[in-house]
Amino acid sequence: MSELRYNIVNREWVVIATERAKRPHDFMKPQKDVKIIPEFRQDCPFCPGNEGDLSDETFRIGGKEKWLTRSIYNKFPALSPKEKLVRHNDGIYHSISGYGVAEVIVESPKHNLNLALMSDEEVENIIKAYKDRYLSLQNKEGIESVVIFRNNGSGAGTSLEHPHSQLIATPIVPPQIRNRVESAMAFFDVTGKCIFCSVLEQEMAAKIRMISENGTFASFVPYAGAAPFVTWIFPKRHTSSFGDINGLEIKDLASILKLTLSKLYYGLNNPDYNYTIRSTPVKEDGKAYFHWYLTIVPRITLPAGFEVGSGIFINSSLPEESAEFLRKIKVP
Amino acid sequence: MSELRYNIVNREWVVIATERAKRPHDFMKPQKDVKIIPEFRQDCPFCPGNEGDLSDETFRIGGKEKWLTRSIYNKFPALSPKEKLVRHNDGIYHSISGYGVAEVIVESPKHNLNLALMSDEEVENIIKAYKDRYLSLQNKEGIESVVIFRNNGSGAGTSLEHPHSQLIATPIVPPQIRNRVESAMAFFDVTGKCIFCSVLEQEMAAKIRMISENGTFASFVPYAGAAPFVTWIFPKRHTSSFGDINGLEIKDLASILKLTLSKLYYGLNNPDYNYTIRSTPVKEDGKAYFHWYLTIVPRITLPAGFEVGSGIFINSSLPEESAEFLRKIKVP
Repeated sequence: MSELRYNIVNREWVVIATERAKRPHDFMKPQKDVKIIPEFRQDCPFCPGNEGDLSDETFRIGGKEKWLTRSIYNKFPALSPKEKLVRHNDGIYHSISGYGVAEVIVESPKHNLNLALMSDEEVENIIKAYKDRYLSLQNKEGIESVVIFRNNGSGAGTSLEHPHSQLIATPIVPPQIRNRVESAMAFFDVTGKCIFCSVLEQEMAAKIRMISENGTFASFVPYAGAAPFVTWIFPKRHTSSFGDINGLEIKDLASILKLTLSKLYYGLNNPDYNYTIRSTPVKEDGKAYFHWYLTIVPRITLPAGFEVGSGIFINSSLPEESAEFLRKIKVP
Repeated sequence: MSELRYNIVNREWVVIATERAKRPHDFMKPQKDVKIIPEFRQDCPFCPGNEGDLSDETFRIGGKEKWLTRSIYNKFPALSPKEKLVRHNDGIYHSISGYGVAEVIVESPKHNLNLALMSDEEVENIIKAYKDRYLSLQNKEGIESVVIFRNNGSGAGTSLEHPHSQLIATPIVPPQIRNRVESAMAFFDVTGKCIFCSVLEQEMAAKIRMISENGTFASFVPYAGAAPFVTWIFPKRHTSSFGDINGLEIKDLASILKLTLSKLYYGLNNPDYNYTIRSTPVKEDGKAYFHWYLTIVPRITLPAGFEVGSGIFINSSLPEESAEFLRKIKVP
């Protein structure tokens, strides 16, 4: 029968719905939905030759013409540094002007490349770009959080095909982060331990939800993931800020991220997904209770009215079975 | 420029993104996505004649053959009363057996009817069914919450076309409810007032986000809705539980719900949507700080990686403009 599982990291419950359960391969993307994409498109703003005057560039690896990875200001920013940070009140309501920074990390010059198919070195360049941009923005006045994320596929909200990640620096601590900070704080106050270190310890001992592991990182399917194939990648070293990632960890994260995404790519036929790095609020670094990590959320199933009404997600897959399936996927 | 607005009811921020802003009619469903549906389908389990032996029926208005609205146990329940309520621990993890109740409210015998096109009396029958089922389940042992919801259209998670609502009674207080209870409690502790009464008071005075109003209800676009055309319907009388709804209020709710959904139907071409009733945890009734309400969430835009990573939603519509648009829509 079904089971309700508690996610101790965000204090949400998930129904692991065996009555509606599917086998791992049932979540594969249908072949008809797979597109052939060219390596270069004249009309793509991210393809080489279409960079314009470079005044919007914030970071680059490689030469001006022969770049490998670069980041630019988002042309359609949700939040902008041109705005002054101003707070307003209207009776019981509160608002803030749209101050912040929105950047795009163009991951590769090749229009049709996919993280799952890149070399470890190519993925390493992307992580280096994330780190550079994170460090540049974390001390900026009025910025409370730097959210790094990636949308893969139209079902995950991508509007541009060219491989890219995004970053938005916000003038507030986002609810998803504040919620996890609160959980972690409460756990620390009771146990004297980091909640994320404790999760990792239990997962590495139990083994049944592990996908892969290297010197400094582990990837696994969480005990109470809200959707099929949600995957967490945790650094083994306790550190609250992604900005603290060191050289060896950059290599290891690139390698395990690429491996995990490749397993999803080959196992589920290039599923739509989002991933995001959950890092400490930038002005609250160095705390014993928080621990940054990366979460991959495949967009395979659709939340419906029950999820909207309750916040309880129905997951029609069994985390232990998904992990076993991914462990067995061979990556060429 | 963009603006961040704070939703005081769930303590979440929303970016009202004027840089990406669209006009109300840009959110219309394309005509090609509109299907013609027959009034009866032989293969539909909810159509008259296909009821089976009635052993799964929990409520009915009308005769056995000529019913108007009925409710039944869900054949594929996420949670089931056949399970015993048992709690487990596995190290730091917690789980509960899949105990609960899942029912389907078959709204009409007509396969192709839509709430927006029903008579007020037909909608009244649906609300009566909600009330009956809510009251029946709220005192059941081990049930902490009764979540009533509706999925309209495939983009909102409907798998069956026949007009129906659903209800899931859960052995836990869902996070979406607990979150709002906490906000309401904190507001009450500071101001001595109900947060929902205060919102309603400010909206009725400001008028700019109002859609419609009758003797006992008001419908409006919230100040910080997470998505275009999110709409709230509040009872004017302060009461924490939907189960307290009285005869006049049932009539008025039916009328304002039908009118609001009709405005969405004619204004946006039958958009996919979910609605849900947010009511007090059933064993915590009668509190001064909580106030039940109904929320309609059109599924017009797709949350992407930023929403997944931050919990901050980007709303590409202006609530005041959406409300004005809906106020002006004439319903035949």
